[in-house]
Amino acid sequence: MKIAVLGTGQVGNALASKLIQLGHQVMMGSRTSNNEKALFFLSKHASNAKIGTFAEAAAFGEIVFNCTAGSHSLEALKRASEENLNGKILVDVANPLDYSHGLPPTLTIDNTTSLGEEIQRTFPKVKVVKALNTLWCELMVDPGMLNGGDHDIFICGDDDDAKKQVMGLLTSFGWKETNMIDLGHIAKARGTEMYIALWLSIFSSTNNSKFNIKVVR
Amino acid sequence: MKIAVLGTGQVGNALASKLIQLGHQVMMGSRTSNNEKALFFLSKHASNAKIGTFAEAAAFGEIVFNCTAGSHSLEALKRASEENLNGKILVDVANPLDYSHGLPPTLTIDNTTSLGEEIQRTFPKVKVVKALNTLWCELMVDPGMLNGGDHDIFICGDDDDAKKQVMGLLTSFGWKETNMIDLGHIAKARGTEMYIALWLSIFSSTNNSKFNIKVVR
Repeated sequence: MKIAVLGTGQVGNALASKLIQLGHQVMMGSRTSNNEKALFFLSKHASNAKIGTFAEAAAFGEIVFNCTAGSHSLEALKRASEENLNGKILVDVANPLDYSHGLPPTLTIDNTTSLGEEIQRTFPKVKVVKALNTLWCELMVDPGMLNGGDHDIFICGDDDDAKKQVMGLLTSFGWKETNMIDLGHIAKARGTEMYIALWLSIFSSTNNSKFNIKVVR
Repeated sequence: MKIAVLGTGQVGNALASKLIQLGHQVMMGSRTSNNEKALFFLSKHASNAKIGTFAEAAAFGEIVFNCTAGSHSLEALKRASEENLNGKILVDVANPLDYSHGLPPTLTIDNTTSLGEEIQRTFPKVKVVKALNTLWCELMVDPGMLNGGDHDIFICGDDDDAKKQVMGLLTSFGWKETNMIDLGHIAKARGTEMYIALWLSIFSSTNNSKFNIKVVR
């Protein structure tokens, strides 16, 4: 499959590398297309890896992962352009974190709305699926490295078929269906994004990012 | 021990009943002291149960549980008065939920501060310990009803000795020390309160409040 990964940070890199490993063709998109991190990504993966601008990547991908910094995601997606995104599935992995006031970061959007919802509102013809934004990026693509993969992720979005397709991709990452909790519509992104405040607290008190939560029922 | 439970809702009722069961003397505090719920509580528990105003309860308790509706907690605690609270441990179980705009509720305080922090700021001589605000009240007082008690709660506050005393009480509820995660200072209340948005999403997608999370490490 042709997949766009927007964002060249740790999250984008982890996801793009995994997708290539799984045999997909991946174009990593960034503002300048040839920034240092993008070039490093390209050098690591001989074939199946491409780099481009946000717009070039979005045009290339049949499915698009938003791994840009959440506080700039809407701007990045506008550069990717409606024309290149419409009709496609956008997996929104970002959290709208603002580090400009020091640690811990706060959220630029929260409580009465969420980044996932704002993206869906801004791009009504895009099938936004919020997923994977509640854990460390290495765990996103290799859940088995912790507790035999028995810990949970959350998924939400307005398009059931899009969610099913994303769950298929997540299965290929190693996630079991029983560990993917479908919360419902895209407004549920609020909860998964606000959970990041607790994630950061657990992280800072344990100094360990290799953790996740499991819903015990 | 003499314990005050401020608030006559489900949470206050669950905690006060458990504390009486454990042999403590409990005064349940409310605005009017003799409201219907308080009288019902009194009728259920012949001895060891008392009811009073917020101020009477706070004066009575050696330790105070804040189980008032979070959006009114600061007002309720002001009625309880600094004079009656100073020097004591206040276990803040409340979440600042605002139901006035319909469902899901939003938070009246969040992101850059939290109810726990605001209480600590308003009552600097009170030892505020945030705890138990991340799960259904019946599970708070009977963790063993789920997964043999193997699921986690979070605790935070500025006074280490106060946290230890609260953890002692939680142990008497059935919580194991390995399932109590000390997040650090009271500012970490932000994460546990904001998590409620995810709790509400999980609740509404499963229609089941008998769940909790476990941090898988």
